[in-house]
Amino acid sequence: MAITQTLFTDTPLDVVIMAAGKGTRMKSKLPKVLHLLAGRALVQHVVDTAAELQARQVTVITGHGAAEVEAALSTKTRAAGQLDIHFVRQEPQLGTGHAIQQAVPVLRDDGLVVVLSGDVPLTQADTLTQLISACAGDKLALLTIDFANPTGYGRIVRKGDAVQAIVEQKDASAAQLKITEVYSGIMAVPAKQLKSWLARLDNKNAQGEYYLTDIVKFAVADGFPVVAHKISDAAQVAGVNSPVQLAELERTYQKRVALQLMEQGVRLADPARLDVRGTLTCAQDVAIDVNCVFEGQVSLGEGVQVGPNCVIKNASIAAGAVIHPFTHIEGGEPGSKNAVEVGAGALIGPFARLRPGAKLGAEVHIGNFVEVKNSTLAKGAKANHLAYLGDATVGERVNYGAGSITANYDGANKHRTVIEADVHIGSNCVLIAPVTIGAGGTVGGGSTLSKDAPPLALTVARARQVSIPNWKRPAKK
Amino acid sequence: MAITQTLFTDTPLDVVIMAAGKGTRMKSKLPKVLHLLAGRALVQHVVDTAAELQARQVTVITGHGAAEVEAALSTKTRAAGQLDIHFVRQEPQLGTGHAIQQAVPVLRDDGLVVVLSGDVPLTQADTLTQLISACAGDKLALLTIDFANPTGYGRIVRKGDAVQAIVEQKDASAAQLKITEVYSGIMAVPAKQLKSWLARLDNKNAQGEYYLTDIVKFAVADGFPVVAHKISDAAQVAGVNSPVQLAELERTYQKRVALQLMEQGVRLADPARLDVRGTLTCAQDVAIDVNCVFEGQVSLGEGVQVGPNCVIKNASIAAGAVIHPFTHIEGGEPGSKNAVEVGAGALIGPFARLRPGAKLGAEVHIGNFVEVKNSTLAKGAKANHLAYLGDATVGERVNYGAGSITANYDGANKHRTVIEADVHIGSNCVLIAPVTIGAGGTVGGGSTLSKDAPPLALTVARARQVSIPNWKRPAKK
Amino acid sequence: MAITQTLFTDTPLDVVIMAAGKGTRMKSKLPKVLHLLAGRALVQHVVDTAAELQARQVTVITGHGAAEVEAALSTKTRAAGQLDIHFVRQEPQLGTGHAIQQAVPVLRDDGLVVVLSGDVPLTQADTLTQLISACAGDKLALLTIDFANPTGYGRIVRKGDAVQAIVEQKDASAAQLKITEVYSGIMAVPAKQLKSWLARLDNKNAQGEYYLTDIVKFAVADGFPVVAHKISDAAQVAGVNSPVQLAELERTYQKRVALQLMEQGVRLADPARLDVRGTLTCAQDVAIDVNCVFEGQVSLGEGVQVGPNCVIKNASIAAGAVIHPFTHIEGGEPGSKNAVEVGAGALIGPFARLRPGAKLGAEVHIGNFVEVKNSTLAKGAKANHLAYLGDATVGERVNYGAGSITANYDGANKHRTVIEADVHIGSNCVLIAPVTIGAGGTVGGGSTLSKDAPPLALTVARARQVSIPNWKRPAKK
Repeated sequence: MAITQTLFTDTPLDVVIMAAGKGTRMKSKLPKVLHLLAGRALVQHVVDTAAELQARQVTVITGHGAAEVEAALSTKTRAAGQLDIHFVRQEPQLGTGHAIQQAVPVLRDDGLVVVLSGDVPLTQADTLTQLISACAGDKLALLTIDFANPTGYGRIVRKGDAVQAIVEQKDASAAQLKITEVYSGIMAVPAKQLKSWLARLDNKNAQGEYYLTDIVKFAVADGFPVVAHKISDAAQVAGVNSPVQLAELERTYQKRVALQLMEQGVRLADPARLDVRGTLTCAQDVAIDVNCVFEGQVSLGEGVQVGPNCVIKNASIAAGAVIHPFTHIEGGEPGSKNAVEVGAGALIGPFARLRPGAKLGAEVHIGNFVEVKNSTLAKGAKANHLAYLGDATVGERVNYGAGSITANYDGANKHRTVIEADVHIGSNCVLIAPVTIGAGGTVGGGSTLSKDAPPLALTVARARQVSIPNWKRPAKK
Repeated sequence: MAITQTLFTDTPLDVVIMAAGKGTRMKSKLPKVLHLLAGRALVQHVVDTAAELQARQVTVITGHGAAEVEAALSTKTRAAGQLDIHFVRQEPQLGTGHAIQQAVPVLRDDGLVVVLSGDVPLTQADTLTQLISACAGDKLALLTIDFANPTGYGRIVRKGDAVQAIVEQKDASAAQLKITEVYSGIMAVPAKQLKSWLARLDNKNAQGEYYLTDIVKFAVADGFPVVAHKISDAAQVAGVNSPVQLAELERTYQKRVALQLMEQGVRLADPARLDVRGTLTCAQDVAIDVNCVFEGQVSLGEGVQVGPNCVIKNASIAAGAVIHPFTHIEGGEPGSKNAVEVGAGALIGPFARLRPGAKLGAEVHIGNFVEVKNSTLAKGAKANHLAYLGDATVGERVNYGAGSITANYDGANKHRTVIEADVHIGSNCVLIAPVTIGAGGTVGGGSTLSKDAPPLALTVARARQVSIPNWKRPAKK
Repeated sequence: MAITQTLFTDTPLDVVIMAAGKGTRMKSKLPKVLHLLAGRALVQHVVDTAAELQARQVTVITGHGAAEVEAALSTKTRAAGQLDIHFVRQEPQLGTGHAIQQAVPVLRDDGLVVVLSGDVPLTQADTLTQLISACAGDKLALLTIDFANPTGYGRIVRKGDAVQAIVEQKDASAAQLKITEVYSGIMAVPAKQLKSWLARLDNKNAQGEYYLTDIVKFAVADGFPVVAHKISDAAQVAGVNSPVQLAELERTYQKRVALQLMEQGVRLADPARLDVRGTLTCAQDVAIDVNCVFEGQVSLGEGVQVGPNCVIKNASIAAGAVIHPFTHIEGGEPGSKNAVEVGAGALIGPFARLRPGAKLGAEVHIGNFVEVKNSTLAKGAKANHLAYLGDATVGERVNYGAGSITANYDGANKHRTVIEADVHIGSNCVLIAPVTIGAGGTVGGGSTLSKDAPPLALTVARARQVSIPNWKRPAKK
């Protein structure tokens, strides 16, 4: 989804993100901007958009839960590399103008500043590129939108194309109240001018706050051009102040992802019942059934079919694999040895669980009520029923019987089980690791093995079968 | 959700619920009012609303399926205690007026009567409180609503604020047909007047029925004030006559529950994919993923996370517990020893099933394909894979191996398994109850135990492992 | 859903289906008309509608992916029997008129031809019956619809009731552009006239294509009446050109199915979360919970309850059975021995999987994490926990213990397990097939049986339990 943006200006881009608010209506201990939308913190969406814009630096203004917000962004952002991220704290919070004033020391004079909000997650990079283009390094550019019901928003008063003022609801005349174009809270402005205007802000108003929007009147007074870039997509300027708004934007986001996938050719049984929290990459002719959830980085190869009610995280699934209903795949970090791999033509599920480090070769079958963790299965290996494979290396064409378990944990340490090619493991076996079953070997059903089994042999550990005739069963007490 | 209502009148409140209808369009053997909405019978919703209003008595008029309706309500209502509920039968059914006439013998003269319908489940108590307030003990108060398309409904003819008549569709003049305010079927009226007017009803109309709405004309004739309390929320007066209408109201109800939860701070991944059939109580910072169903009484402690596709009934889940996807919890009666308890910080699922009487301590882990029934697990106990724990008492820090089973049933009686603290049970073991594994003991994988195992010992029941070299496998026939 | 149609004409009906298009916007290797809607290829929907109309013959014009389309339709249609289906190829594709020209050799002169599109799946048979009735064997009848935004569609120019022309967007006058009635692409026309007009088509237009719509002007020129049958339901004329449109029609289809089921009396917890891909037949008082998927032929008997999140294919479920949440049933071909049968009053799930050939008698219980394949269970048999029954014959009242497995596969061949009536199988047993457990026998927990067990006996294969005191556990390395 990374889009290379061509900016129509040579001015370096510096992004300032306001992320100091408490978010009382979230009724949460978590700072508002750390609430998750599609698996990412709200403010992380905004930072990621800044990264998409190839911002020279990103300054995040924190306040409520500052340490928590800074820690969350630092970790994520360092992992991603590259982005030059700064934190400044706004304590106490005395208004939007006051917030941006805190950033002044880190803002360089030569930059073009884009002001974003950490609780407005869905502004798209191309919208901001257009805003920057409108700013063009020598104007104050406001992102605006028409609202059918503008009540409560700052109205954009224009004279021709030029913006004359942002008038707050309570200060608006009857004529101004009818204006439907409102300010979104997002602007692009040359740093030098911004700084000079910030120095002129005062808090002589009912709230006793410093308002960033007051800079418009200074610009107009200075004869500095103020322009508006108006968009029509309300979701891009929608802020999250409550769980209801969070849920609404989550659905908006998910609908967009579904639409993008379908436009790439992915067949979705129900676009309203898909959740992607991360990156889902699909080759040609992928079909995804109802009610699936994808998390982290998931790639689906050509012709992959995902059945209803699957939950898949951090996995690479090769061409032609079929993921049957109720499959749960939970890979570790993308790119690490713990990410899950499913080979071409593999059949997984229903009711299968693949855990971190499951590496399945081509045409592997993992059936119902089977769990695989930190194990490699070579081409054509099968574990079809009620089984556990943990810390195991399984060769080609192995048939791993129903109910069989690798006892990989001795209560203190984990050990590996090696099952070489063409082995047949019977039902309800226990393989006590460390143990190796030699190639072509057979293990009889119900055997518990604590020593290696030689290749090509039948290995059993089984008690003699005896019958006690006319046995009297326990009677109901 | 119980709201203490302050009524603006001293008159005792008596509720009459019409529940005699057949509901032909439901195409069901079940009486219409017993169909379930959010897990409760339609008429039970209405009775519960009456209870919320602290009605002095509730009279339910039954007819079709009378015995069934009365039995269902009696059981439920007795369980809840307190409510003074009466049943009168209307046989045959000769109209709404005739229905209420059957209630006359049980209605006391000093009461204020609210007439409700057993198939109109979503009228809210505060709406009725306002209606009662409009009645004020000395008026006939009708609950009305504006319908864009009023066709088929009785129109409210007003003169100023006062109501002059309810005019049925077929009797309405061209001017009256344009009236959009219609009668909802719900009224509040002093018992004394109601009784006098009921005595004056006749059935001289096309249908040959006694219409309750005819009392309006008697009131007007008597100079008794008739007022309308108009609401705008159509769901509150919507009746259920077909499975389509039932499904519509179910969704309306569920959206409201979702909204209430979000307003309390609960994060819902998709408010349109949540079903609550009973009472869901959430502490701060609870997050519920898509497609979950809650039944009976469920409480979720602070920070509890519920993954996608969970079904949870009658359970108390303590702070910080994580319920992974595809978890099925099915506790017994709320408050009983069979309700399920999940301790603080416990990890449950995916694909776990907790059945009645599962009592899990703090930090217990129940993993995939594990079933727990009527068992107590102390702090830190783990059963992570493919296991059954039934009628067991499990001590702290016990590790219960993959594939292990408590054989609690001898075909006639159930017996308990006791696994003391710090025991390690290997994989694919069978513990034949009654049996006790002493504290700190270890049971070797693949063992079937029919006798107690001493503390601190390694107990095994395992056959010797033998290998038959160059074993010839069965060949394909 | 098969409706017997009475046609108001004696003229034999011949259907021509255009199915040669590539469908570039589908971005798929699959020919467009083979994409699935509700589990059936788009063109199969159209062929099935032709079959509902009792067409004398059906001619499918193929082009892109011709061999694949013909193979898919031949197989399906032959399986269904009866329909006289022809294929003609259009190569290259030179327009809609050119497409129908290819069908001329197989069209008989005495027929009434209905032209349909293979990518317009939801046209209903009764709509076509009305169109045929409008044609009446002696008119050219066009199926039309009003679009609020008709941009891009061919406008219907009328003089009174009669149609004068179809005017394409680019040829339309300002007045004609305001016409909202457009041509759907579907027509009914006598074969004789159709053929004569097809012979007169030319491709002297901007696209250099032969347009079928040009026949309207020949008809008007010939004084042959042209009529329009206008419908209001846009879904019936909606074509599928992209995955987005496919998903939209899928939802439209599913909403219709849900509505039909509810009108029959089925209770759906959420009509927007039901998927039926095939035929779902429900007796009285069936209730289906949220998020269920039905495929193939499924019948649900009186009072059957299906819990949330079930996936059910090709199964017959008898009266009073309860299908608990997360149940996966996957029967083989409908009507074959592999279709799944669930007996009256059976309890299935949660987390149960019934595979092809599972035949469960009355009151059978299949519990969590249990898989049944190609097995017959007689009345009252139970397998409640973590078990596999494959290729087994299970008698009445058998109790099959938790964790027990039928080892039906010796690595080369499959063998049957016979468990006679009243047998109790303990926990974690392995029954190595072929093996028979005699009636009334008991198999001790943890036993692996490779020989038959006699009736009424207790059969065990179990090692002696020994304890090693003060055993020192492995220490963490």
